[in-house]
Amino acid sequence: MFGQMMQQPLLISSLLVHAERHHGEQQIVSRRVEGDIHRYTYRDLASRARRMAKALAALGVTPGQRVGTLAWNGYRHMELYYAVSGSGAVLHTVNPRLHPDQIAYIADHAEDQVIFFDMTFLPLIQAVAGRTKAVKHYVAMTDRAHLPADHKVPGLLCYEDLLDAQDDRYEWPSFDENTASSLCYTSGTTGNPKGVLYSHRSTVLHTMAGALPDALGCSAADVVLPVVPMFHVNSWGIVYIAPMTGAKLVLPGAGLDGKSLYELFESEGVTLSAGVPTVWQGLLAYVDANGLKFSTMRRSAIGGSACPPAMIRRFLEVYGVRVIHAWGMTEMSPIGTAASFKSKHPGQTLDERLAVMSTQGRALYGVDMKIVDESGNELPWDGKASGDLLVRGPWIIASYFKNEGGDPLRDGWFPTGDVAKIDADGYMIITDRSKDVIKSGGEWIGSIDLENIAMAHPAVAMAACVAAFHPKWDERPLLVVVKKPGVEVTREELLAFYDGKIAKWWTPDDVVFVDAIPLGATGKMQKNKLRDSLKDYKLPTA
Amino acid sequence: MFGQMMQQPLLISSLLVHAERHHGEQQIVSRRVEGDIHRYTYRDLASRARRMAKALAALGVTPGQRVGTLAWNGYRHMELYYAVSGSGAVLHTVNPRLHPDQIAYIADHAEDQVIFFDMTFLPLIQAVAGRTKAVKHYVAMTDRAHLPADHKVPGLLCYEDLLDAQDDRYEWPSFDENTASSLCYTSGTTGNPKGVLYSHRSTVLHTMAGALPDALGCSAADVVLPVVPMFHVNSWGIVYIAPMTGAKLVLPGAGLDGKSLYELFESEGVTLSAGVPTVWQGLLAYVDANGLKFSTMRRSAIGGSACPPAMIRRFLEVYGVRVIHAWGMTEMSPIGTAASFKSKHPGQTLDERLAVMSTQGRALYGVDMKIVDESGNELPWDGKASGDLLVRGPWIIASYFKNEGGDPLRDGWFPTGDVAKIDADGYMIITDRSKDVIKSGGEWIGSIDLENIAMAHPAVAMAACVAAFHPKWDERPLLVVVKKPGVEVTREELLAFYDGKIAKWWTPDDVVFVDAIPLGATGKMQKNKLRDSLKDYKLPTA
Repeated sequence: MFGQMMQQPLLISSLLVHAERHHGEQQIVSRRVEGDIHRYTYRDLASRARRMAKALAALGVTPGQRVGTLAWNGYRHMELYYAVSGSGAVLHTVNPRLHPDQIAYIADHAEDQVIFFDMTFLPLIQAVAGRTKAVKHYVAMTDRAHLPADHKVPGLLCYEDLLDAQDDRYEWPSFDENTASSLCYTSGTTGNPKGVLYSHRSTVLHTMAGALPDALGCSAADVVLPVVPMFHVNSWGIVYIAPMTGAKLVLPGAGLDGKSLYELFESEGVTLSAGVPTVWQGLLAYVDANGLKFSTMRRSAIGGSACPPAMIRRFLEVYGVRVIHAWGMTEMSPIGTAASFKSKHPGQTLDERLAVMSTQGRALYGVDMKIVDESGNELPWDGKASGDLLVRGPWIIASYFKNEGGDPLRDGWFPTGDVAKIDADGYMIITDRSKDVIKSGGEWIGSIDLENIAMAHPAVAMAACVAAFHPKWDERPLLVVVKKPGVEVTREELLAFYDGKIAKWWTPDDVVFVDAIPLGATGKMQKNKLRDSLKDYKLPTA
Repeated sequence: MFGQMMQQPLLISSLLVHAERHHGEQQIVSRRVEGDIHRYTYRDLASRARRMAKALAALGVTPGQRVGTLAWNGYRHMELYYAVSGSGAVLHTVNPRLHPDQIAYIADHAEDQVIFFDMTFLPLIQAVAGRTKAVKHYVAMTDRAHLPADHKVPGLLCYEDLLDAQDDRYEWPSFDENTASSLCYTSGTTGNPKGVLYSHRSTVLHTMAGALPDALGCSAADVVLPVVPMFHVNSWGIVYIAPMTGAKLVLPGAGLDGKSLYELFESEGVTLSAGVPTVWQGLLAYVDANGLKFSTMRRSAIGGSACPPAMIRRFLEVYGVRVIHAWGMTEMSPIGTAASFKSKHPGQTLDERLAVMSTQGRALYGVDMKIVDESGNELPWDGKASGDLLVRGPWIIASYFKNEGGDPLRDGWFPTGDVAKIDADGYMIITDRSKDVIKSGGEWIGSIDLENIAMAHPAVAMAACVAAFHPKWDERPLLVVVKKPGVEVTREELLAFYDGKIAKWWTPDDVVFVDAIPLGATGKMQKNKLRDSLKDYKLPTA
């Protein structure tokens, strides 16, 4: 017997319809690549998204076809998010930090019919345009006045021209909520990038879960600024969460340096933000150097890489900002866990609460997780046992686009490639990527713990810990450090810094100082490149 | 083209599975009808719910069949919520405040196979048992020791005996998320009660929306006490929201007087509560009379009837408790709107913010609403135009159980029977039930506004405003007042109290003092009975 409630598919367009009807006057503020500040409302967004949906149809885009973007966080990118998915096509957000070869590969693999791009990326488009077979149109996300005459892209179209040719009389179509909505490629360290194909259903459910108090806790009273790019897993869902909740949305464009961000935080009254740890380092450095404070920001979601506990403490103690430490993956839409408190925590000490905030957090409702040993047996949640982390849920991947790489699941669970431990309260701590684990004498050493300790040293700007060959133990930890400018620290001081903070045998065997640690397209440290460059390194203990 | 994310049906059992795995140690505290405090965890709840699912099967209950309950808010009722719906049967919560004739009618109409009841309701069951045709078993929700020998119910079963016969090795079945999960009858003022048949999908979506920051804003850090009964639209979803979020749950049983509630609020550290205005009057009266404070409670959801603005102000100014003024219906699962702030409100004055808090609030994502005139034309959201309120969304009724009353929808929208206005920011104000509107000289007068003003007078305990016959204007407002004990106030003083607060012609023509205003089974004023008793009343202005 079925229930007798209304049947309405969970569609991405419904988020925008809700925003237009119930938050029509709420603002969306964008820093344009042209440098100025653009300001309009959800009502304007909805109207222009409908016009763009008609423009896409006029370009010959049909439901199910892919439409690519190479763009910063800005209002035109938002319009494409809703115009493309809302009309039944698939939005393919391309990471512009990838190599042109990879972008050409991805665009053809996705069979992108159209690629929209911010003017920043014109040189990239010039490098890619001749090489893709699928793409029929390139559209510059600007107006005619800002389009250079010598753009060298054959048949280049102009975004505002496309809009000007349409009116906004358009009804969002209704269709099966399992229809594909958007596509995001993972920048794997080996092999070709693989696409994750989200559905309207998975996206809307993730949006609802992501806005819950124990995730981002986003409401209509918030002013949210996603530093995390819209080309990086839909800015962790904020492009959907803000319209759903009616939050004011502030989009920073290309201005991701500390000064540009800080000015936008203050001028727009930002209460909630989200980004990777490296972005916050730049922002905090600027704020520190200029003796500034955050007058409205109260919460900052940090993920993408583990956030060093020292940063969580500094945000809280110095700036009164609660870090929402979160974990997820492209394959998970992306949010899986967030470090929020339980009812027993408010009475605990600051140190105890900081320990909770430093974990990757608890699973959101909708996500289940488990850790398993090498034979696949489930391990206890005792805060000690660590093993491969597996997840499942309605916004977690079942298979990659075009079934690249075959069936990724194990008995219905997705193996994350992370190694983790989970405590009795369900708080999960990533101890390593499985490929980054250091295996010393048959025992695992988690590189992230070692990095977090190094990052707490005042002289350290960035730290990575990788396995180095050891004739007796097979592998031993080697610490790679970027020093802060103008600050000195010795190998011995750094190694002594580990005393009492960790088991003696976990202490790195040596320290290497470098000018920079290679970062991937999504800002994560590329430890495989570090390992390659250090593969002949001879430990002094060897 | 479909997305490639995991397919998992949205099932009520998944809420409990999540609670058991990720919040296993979190507490559920119940005041038992036996008088003592019972305390266990979500892990215990899950284990006992699985045993009860097996017990139901042993009683012959099959998927789709209805199982009735007549019970307070308590842990055994929670177990039935999950055991019945989780196993694929339909939980039918019966309002024990109904007349035995109505209960017998409802039980037979629903074809309840089993009825579970708290010992409080033994006399009711004794009155009903001989009269129902469908019910095969009655189960007393207690243990053998608390079962009186002379219970006079043939074949009466004992809840703990049923559990003792089962172990907890049971896997929740998976099935279509549109499967019926639960059934709740509306206590209409005319005609027979009609059943609203919820599905797993509608329930889970409502649960996610109801926990959002702009609705209840419930998190794992909360201690939530639903005063609103589990037989009253699933205690507004809190029976589902608490396990989903991992909040500590405090269930007050039959102890709904001010003293019992206050003691539980304080001893268990309740942070969030929910109930109808009349319950809070009792609680605040107790708190006032004894010079007490709430040491942990910070938010209180109030709905069911409009909350007088004076109560919202008093909660905030005197007790530091934010009232979440909400509106909904049995037909809406029930939450439709909640009065939460937008990003522009924090800078406003207390009076401006109290005005926002006094509205019925904005639509949750998932709910859309509109107001229409008598011809069905949509009216503007200008805060002035008022008309029939219509709603739609995935947790709103499509038709009543067994299609009683035919198709209730108008062009896909459900007519709520309320009359409302909506302002430009989407805040909705119920001005009346359509059947309670006072039509004076062809113009509508909203009775709720008039009642709210009377309720702000220090001598008034309860006030209702109804239409009285007038030879010139057809209808004029008549104010019916219950005075606070030991306080005096005259007709003239009350009428003068309206000066400057409302249009002169809205002022009631007269005041009638009564000892009590009749309340229905869900605590709402029964204005139809008032109108009946006053039908020969002659206004002094007539």
